[in-house]
Amino acid sequence: MVKMKVKRVIMRRLPVGGDLLEELNKLARDEGIELGEISGIGALRRAAVGIFVPEAREYKVHTYDEQTELCVLAGNVSLKDGEPFVHAHVSLTDTEGRGLGGHVMPGCEIFVAEVVVWEFEGPRLERCPQEECGGLALWAAENVGTE
Amino acid sequence: MVKMKVKRVIMRRLPVGGDLLEELNKLARDEGIELGEISGIGALRRAAVGIFVPEAREYKVHTYDEQTELCVLAGNVSLKDGEPFVHAHVSLTDTEGRGLGGHVMPGCEIFVAEVVVWEFEGPRLERCPQEECGGLALWAAENVGTE
Amino acid sequence: MVKMKVKRVIMRRLPVGGDLLEELNKLARDEGIELGEISGIGALRRAAVGIFVPEAREYKVHTYDEQTELCVLAGNVSLKDGEPFVHAHVSLTDTEGRGLGGHVMPGCEIFVAEVVVWEFEGPRLERCPQEECGGLALWAAENVGTE
Repeated sequence: MVKMKVKRVIMRRLPVGGDLLEELNKLARDEGIELGEISGIGALRRAAVGIFVPEAREYKVHTYDEQTELCVLAGNVSLKDGEPFVHAHVSLTDTEGRGLGGHVMPGCEIFVAEVVVWEFEGPRLERCPQEECGGLALWAAENVGTE
Repeated sequence: MVKMKVKRVIMRRLPVGGDLLEELNKLARDEGIELGEISGIGALRRAAVGIFVPEAREYKVHTYDEQTELCVLAGNVSLKDGEPFVHAHVSLTDTEGRGLGGHVMPGCEIFVAEVVVWEFEGPRLERCPQEECGGLALWAAENVGTE
Repeated sequence: MVKMKVKRVIMRRLPVGGDLLEELNKLARDEGIELGEISGIGALRRAAVGIFVPEAREYKVHTYDEQTELCVLAGNVSLKDGEPFVHAHVSLTDTEGRGLGGHVMPGCEIFVAEVVVWEFEGPRLERCPQEECGGLALWAAENVGTE
């Protein structure tokens, strides 16, 4: 378990036309944020989301070449291969108001993304290599459970 | 980019029967919160949500005259015309468990709304007039990008 | 209304195979968190969510015996019967990317759950007995409204 204090909070609108995941990772790297939480709202011009399929050890990816409302962006920042790494999910709706969403893949084109990024002070939190975790890069076991 | 510290946190159940957007704006104004983040969970008796349609420069609005579960409320507080202004989105499900949601419009009637409002200390963050932003009141350009 | 300061923040991956609600409550109790907010992302092996039906004074429960993506976990910690008590909601998607979700019931089996738990310093916030609130354990009336 990682125990932390809040260091600072950043609020920003990400650039129109940018790739959501890339912009979030860029923000974390540019600001040197190694541990944090992300939230936000907005709209996407195009969405690409994944749902993890354990048997296949990979994400099933759905793409939507249409405007969606970004109801909720939720995510965190930790380290992977020693670099800041964003893991983010979205809850979306299409223009008919139907719910969509999943793990944010490359290919989510921003229309509006108003994000809040919380930077925490705390110990290093690293993701382990994918091959050790059934296809997912998870936080190491010592950050799990009741220890 | 706006960099901030946490000033305080407010937790409250909003009044039954109130309008979600109105109650959030009233809370921000009454407490003098000019910069903040909002999250929450609950249930609505009636929902009205918008999905922005860029070609039309306006929201397509869906209304649901039925009970929905408020899975996630997510939003922020900044300034518009010099006054505290709430921008909020919701992720909902109907009684069959199907996902709905979008931009919170007037007309969301509260059944239960347990909200957390974070007040930040930081520079003024203003929304620009709608006519300059393709029909949306967005944060000004200097709060965008990598400057 | 309850006004608070942030005391600390905990980031953790909950145990694989655990029950989401049980693990969140255990975390709150083990850490002595009486007032807080919870957020998270991940995936579930099995989901059980409720949508409250006021006429029936109970939740209509939907169960999904399949993998879902946990797009957003949102919740809070307060006291019920003097003990830390977690109230949490989820926004999910099935493998086809369709939105689901609701109130977290017992029976959500964790595949991955990366959670952030915020502990607040503030006055006691108690849920009232269910029989006084139309079937729901809500925060007492003095925490509602504009006082």
